[in-house]
Amino acid sequence: MPHLTIEYSANLDGKIDMAGLCRALHAAILASGLFEMGAIRVRAVRCAAYAVADLLAENAFADLWLRIGAGRSAADKARAGEMIFAAATAHFAPLFKTPYFALTLNLSELDPALSWKKNAIHPRLRAK
Amino acid sequence: MPHLTIEYSANLDGKIDMAGLCRALHAAILASGLFEMGAIRVRAVRCAAYAVADLLAENAFADLWLRIGAGRSAADKARAGEMIFAAATAHFAPLFKTPYFALTLNLSELDPALSWKKNAIHPRLRAK
Amino acid sequence: MPHLTIEYSANLDGKIDMAGLCRALHAAILASGLFEMGAIRVRAVRCAAYAVADLLAENAFADLWLRIGAGRSAADKARAGEMIFAAATAHFAPLFKTPYFALTLNLSELDPALSWKKNAIHPRLRAK
Repeated sequence: MPHLTIEYSANLDGKIDMAGLCRALHAAILASGLFEMGAIRVRAVRCAAYAVADLLAENAFADLWLRIGAGRSAADKARAGEMIFAAATAHFAPLFKTPYFALTLNLSELDPALSWKKNAIHPRLRAK
Repeated sequence: MPHLTIEYSANLDGKIDMAGLCRALHAAILASGLFEMGAIRVRAVRCAAYAVADLLAENAFADLWLRIGAGRSAADKARAGEMIFAAATAHFAPLFKTPYFALTLNLSELDPALSWKKNAIHPRLRAK
Repeated sequence: MPHLTIEYSANLDGKIDMAGLCRALHAAILASGLFEMGAIRVRAVRCAAYAVADLLAENAFADLWLRIGAGRSAADKARAGEMIFAAATAHFAPLFKTPYFALTLNLSELDPALSWKKNAIHPRLRAK
């Protein structure tokens, strides 16, 4: 953790650089100061079929779901969410000039008693 | 919100019209009377690799996950879930004539303190 | 239920047999003794865009999310999670020899009051 999954409508193809968005959100997660770099995993899931709002072909969405380990303060969670959402909003700025786009972010905490992990990247980065 | 994500096994290709399913579920969400049209985002995620039940090649599934804002009554949530599940069941009727298909729906509420959103579609629709 | 979704970075293509992983996790779920075979649905979602850890091209991840019905004991949930995670770790063993891979599993319980299901596979298997 943190994990961030972006689900998006396939009509964003050619309009939004999704790999670039993943990197921008990765940078925002890191800038929050709450997370270790080796733990960050941002990814995007393209949805070929969808039905958005009033069903116009132009209607598009991106929905971000951030999962973090439990234990941060409410203030820290709010600040991290705001930073990540601001980075997403900036990346989608051209689409917000149209009346056809909607963006969401939700944050969940994961129960450490129901989490398992094994990370071969951490030792490499911590050794630096 | 509401968000509805359909995960499904890729062996439904050519058997189920997924864009049509998205529209049918969109209609059911709207018909519940609990949600604003501009907020509805239904989408499908195709899973190319899967392992279902007794692993027969015919075995297929669709799993629907609905996320809504907190605050509706238990009765309203139950009614919305039943309407959406009924629409899904109707769309998959041909598969329920076989012994190879399973359908699920789960509903989660999202914490408003951990949600961020920006919607450029709402102003267009609310102006109507 | 149980449902198990694997999200993974697309750079695992050609390195990991995802259908084989689905079957290995299916076997681990069954071996836990907590679940009926007809209810098991394991699947993988390939993520073409991602940003992992220090952004090296080699960095890869798999993130497993298991959802089960409510009501099992904490000990049963811990045991099932450990068995499934052990099966995943074994499948990814070649990648754990590199410093570029991270694996996670999280378990959630689903609220029966907010779950709907219809399963045409159960009657076939229960009749055996």
